[in-house]
Amino acid sequence: MTTRYKDSATSIDKRVGNLFKAAPAVMTPYSQLMKAASGKGALESKMKELMAFSISIAIRCEDCIIFHLRAALKHGADREEVIEAISVAIEMGGGPSVVYGGRALEALEELS
Amino acid sequence: MTTRYKDSATSIDKRVGNLFKAAPAVMTPYSQLMKAASGKGALESKMKELMAFSISIAIRCEDCIIFHLRAALKHGADREEVIEAISVAIEMGGGPSVVYGGRALEALEELS
Amino acid sequence: MTTRYKDSATSIDKRVGNLFKAAPAVMTPYSQLMKAASGKGALESKMKELMAFSISIAIRCEDCIIFHLRAALKHGADREEVIEAISVAIEMGGGPSVVYGGRALEALEELS
Amino acid sequence: MTTRYKDSATSIDKRVGNLFKAAPAVMTPYSQLMKAASGKGALESKMKELMAFSISIAIRCEDCIIFHLRAALKHGADREEVIEAISVAIEMGGGPSVVYGGRALEALEELS
Amino acid sequence: MTTRYKDSATSIDKRVGNLFKAAPAVMTPYSQLMKAASGKGALESKMKELMAFSISIAIRCEDCIIFHLRAALKHGADREEVIEAISVAIEMGGGPSVVYGGRALEALEELS
Amino acid sequence: MTTRYKDSATSIDKRVGNLFKAAPAVMTPYSQLMKAASGKGALESKMKELMAFSISIAIRCEDCIIFHLRAALKHGADREEVIEAISVAIEMGGGPSVVYGGRALEALEELS
Repeated sequence: MTTRYKDSATSIDKRVGNLFKAAPAVMTPYSQLMKAASGKGALESKMKELMAFSISIAIRCEDCIIFHLRAALKHGADREEVIEAISVAIEMGGGPSVVYGGRALEALEELS
Repeated sequence: MTTRYKDSATSIDKRVGNLFKAAPAVMTPYSQLMKAASGKGALESKMKELMAFSISIAIRCEDCIIFHLRAALKHGADREEVIEAISVAIEMGGGPSVVYGGRALEALEELS
Repeated sequence: MTTRYKDSATSIDKRVGNLFKAAPAVMTPYSQLMKAASGKGALESKMKELMAFSISIAIRCEDCIIFHLRAALKHGADREEVIEAISVAIEMGGGPSVVYGGRALEALEELS
Repeated sequence: MTTRYKDSATSIDKRVGNLFKAAPAVMTPYSQLMKAASGKGALESKMKELMAFSISIAIRCEDCIIFHLRAALKHGADREEVIEAISVAIEMGGGPSVVYGGRALEALEELS
Repeated sequence: MTTRYKDSATSIDKRVGNLFKAAPAVMTPYSQLMKAASGKGALESKMKELMAFSISIAIRCEDCIIFHLRAALKHGADREEVIEAISVAIEMGGGPSVVYGGRALEALEELS
Repeated sequence: MTTRYKDSATSIDKRVGNLFKAAPAVMTPYSQLMKAASGKGALESKMKELMAFSISIAIRCEDCIIFHLRAALKHGADREEVIEAISVAIEMGGGPSVVYGGRALEALEELS
């Protein structure tokens, strides 16, 4: 088992952390927005992270896939739920979501 | 109350119906894919339609917003859940998702 | 038969014509680029316009769909070829390309 | 002179206002983020609004074009500057930015 | 000559193969859709793969570029035709399609 | 300090140079368009490159980020201005622009 996706997650955290220091006036409200959007409400956090994960595949953003997959797993998403979120992305994104979905599945095997 | 979004939904159905007749070899498997992706599994259909709805806002596709909002409502999504799906789209899409989220909310008022 | 897509084509021409007058230093080379990209070469112009049309659906740009569909028809594309270009877009774009493909088909009925 | 773009601007304001009421926990930090991102800093607000306007064209978001064009004009952007921001979008977005740039120019004639 | 793009193609096949096993209910119809969309009809398969390749550049999906370039070459596309498909993508995608077109050309040198 | 982004810049130049040789009829006018769009006018070249850089983040194109960041720095953009251009991208792109903004900041540290 490689650590490719874990390493990516570490790099994302470091880069976003640096951006936070460089642009706190923008990143502080973004951080609040993110917490409000993904915090528990009528929908569970797990579901919202799966939603953000599904969007990440549909828009072809690998860093976003890793970031939100990790968060969904942390909130208890299981393998079947992750695969179904990939499936919705394929419905909405066609072939490009198939190849990014393949990366998402590979990340799932490594991160879970 | 206008019927702008209901009329759009009717037009979408008609256009997609015509496309089905014109390209059955592609649309038949697409239709199966859609059913498989949005059917009940580890996640409920309601959740999957909210996911597709959230993607629709993030990618700025008004017809998709209407189509998947209607499906989410049909599967029992309530106002609070729809608004939270809009919120996740804003987290993932910034300003453009705010303006399309505004359209989604307007559609919600009309379609629900 | 409505004239919705013909009217759109007229508006596009007018707006792009005005942009040409307002920004000739950018629009003149863009116009040359467009001619070079879509002119006959190893591939026919018809094929290149169908390609641009297919991209237009995949990226959800209605004005682009109308513009390149009209050009493809002018270069002799027939109904079956247009529908197959829509099908490739659906392969590459999933659900959003289905709804924009539906608009493209409607434009085809009107413009051909 | 029609009032198409002014009417759109009014509708955008109304829809975003409603979204603010419906999802204050997300829209309040988004509003702060927007102010921080577009407020005067090393770059003037005018320049930042032209930047957001240019992004709006490149990503094909008409509501965003209207919203940020109006803001750029309010901060003193003149016709030549707006046209140059359209030109950068065309450099970055090709044909789709030409057709959306044409809409942006039409909005400029009406809103300025 | 490196084997970067060949290695990528191998990884894509492996990841998509795993996705097929993990989500057969979605991937089976997607596979049928793909065959229907790219099979010979009024347009040759070569042309349809060049179309999918051109879309891949326009939407900035490197895995898609490699996948559809390989398929186009397998169906007999020659260097000149591939370069013209890149050119149409540049017409439709501007600068980002120039840099992804540069990657596509590099892949062409390696894969052909 | 790694040379990751400098190496990327070198590779981009090489690939685009090769594309220029392979498709001069398209690349020559694109090059003129680029010069016209980014040359000094009512707005400075620095500002236009920051605009193109901001678009690059919003559309998630790493090669474009590197290309236009380098150009903006060459035209005298300072650290604060670059960070503000990243901030506008976050306003317009949400989470995906945060992660690509993090890459842009990392590139800034290396290239400046």
